[in-house]
Amino acid sequence: MSFGFLIYPGVEELDFQGPWEMVGMWHKYANGPAPCLVARNLDPVRCAHGMRVLPDSDFASVGQLSHLLIPGGFAAFDEMNQSDICDFVRGHSLAGTTLMSVCSGSFILLGSNVLTGRRACTNWKVIGKLREAGIEVVKERYTRDGPVWTSAGVSAGIDMLLAYIAVTQGEDVASTVQLHAEYFPEGRVYRNSRGEQPVPSYVTQA
Amino acid sequence: MSFGFLIYPGVEELDFQGPWEMVGMWHKYANGPAPCLVARNLDPVRCAHGMRVLPDSDFASVGQLSHLLIPGGFAAFDEMNQSDICDFVRGHSLAGTTLMSVCSGSFILLGSNVLTGRRACTNWKVIGKLREAGIEVVKERYTRDGPVWTSAGVSAGIDMLLAYIAVTQGEDVASTVQLHAEYFPEGRVYRNSRGEQPVPSYVTQA
Repeated sequence: MSFGFLIYPGVEELDFQGPWEMVGMWHKYANGPAPCLVARNLDPVRCAHGMRVLPDSDFASVGQLSHLLIPGGFAAFDEMNQSDICDFVRGHSLAGTTLMSVCSGSFILLGSNVLTGRRACTNWKVIGKLREAGIEVVKERYTRDGPVWTSAGVSAGIDMLLAYIAVTQGEDVASTVQLHAEYFPEGRVYRNSRGEQPVPSYVTQA
Repeated sequence: MSFGFLIYPGVEELDFQGPWEMVGMWHKYANGPAPCLVARNLDPVRCAHGMRVLPDSDFASVGQLSHLLIPGGFAAFDEMNQSDICDFVRGHSLAGTTLMSVCSGSFILLGSNVLTGRRACTNWKVIGKLREAGIEVVKERYTRDGPVWTSAGVSAGIDMLLAYIAVTQGEDVASTVQLHAEYFPEGRVYRNSRGEQPVPSYVTQA
């Protein structure tokens, strides 16, 4: 079984590349599922900051996935209205695939009708927008509601993946992945010119 | 002027993709240099965990770079002996490009003769190996020695990039980049099955 990462034009790079590294280490050092990039077709995908990546599979051929991670980016607000991507996500949800979103990828879950009645996280800039859609949004780094995991913006997907691995595989495996990725961040918060440290509220609440 | 990211077969994904996101945000929100992927030719590059990316430029055509970041991976121990890659790195060093390495990318700097007499960081697994080559290795998340910045393994390049931006552009810009990338990690350290938290020594020294 494979761990799929959904990609589309304009996707934010680190949204999927951060979690990809965690899954890659899990696969290499602790028998985790193999990561693969999935897109609507096999054309190169140009991401938000211009990096071009090649999908490994398209929607039609990828088959059953154990996990499907949906990254965000400004383009997610268009993709959430595309029936091909939403049918793909909903189909995997119905088949029992564990779903995850990073950043505004939560809006693609919304468009796929798999967030209804669930608690979710999203990018701090669009918390209000997701609430207006009737979703209970929590200001946390990530959260879980049944088989649906959602995280805050961009780099938050890394923390979500480690937490997911710890919960499902035990801390020993999460520890192995964390060590190989050397994910021991400084935790430094930079100040803006007014001497403030502008942070999403889940940081200061922690 | 562009911020070049050197890639080669087997390169570790997050080594360059983490810093890429920081440079992408710096470029988008604070007039930083544009990021570009540079390789010896324009063929797709298959990374350590299988992600395939497309180079934007090759060595012959990329022109002068303001910055050149050299990621690592097991493949770096082969690349450090390849004259094409080392000539490319050394040429940019002589031309005044700011050099950075992540993880075992430090060994490509070594093979390019630009680490001699300098202090450096590298992946915790190969600190001894870099010391045997006569380099002063410090057990820190990242360090700077003149125009050469080096970091510890994999995710450490993210912290290095934010620090670089703070030092050269001011904390206001680093704050902007950090906020847009939502890089406010939990800082949780997972325990292994013996109840230990296995971490590189720079973590416990901090």
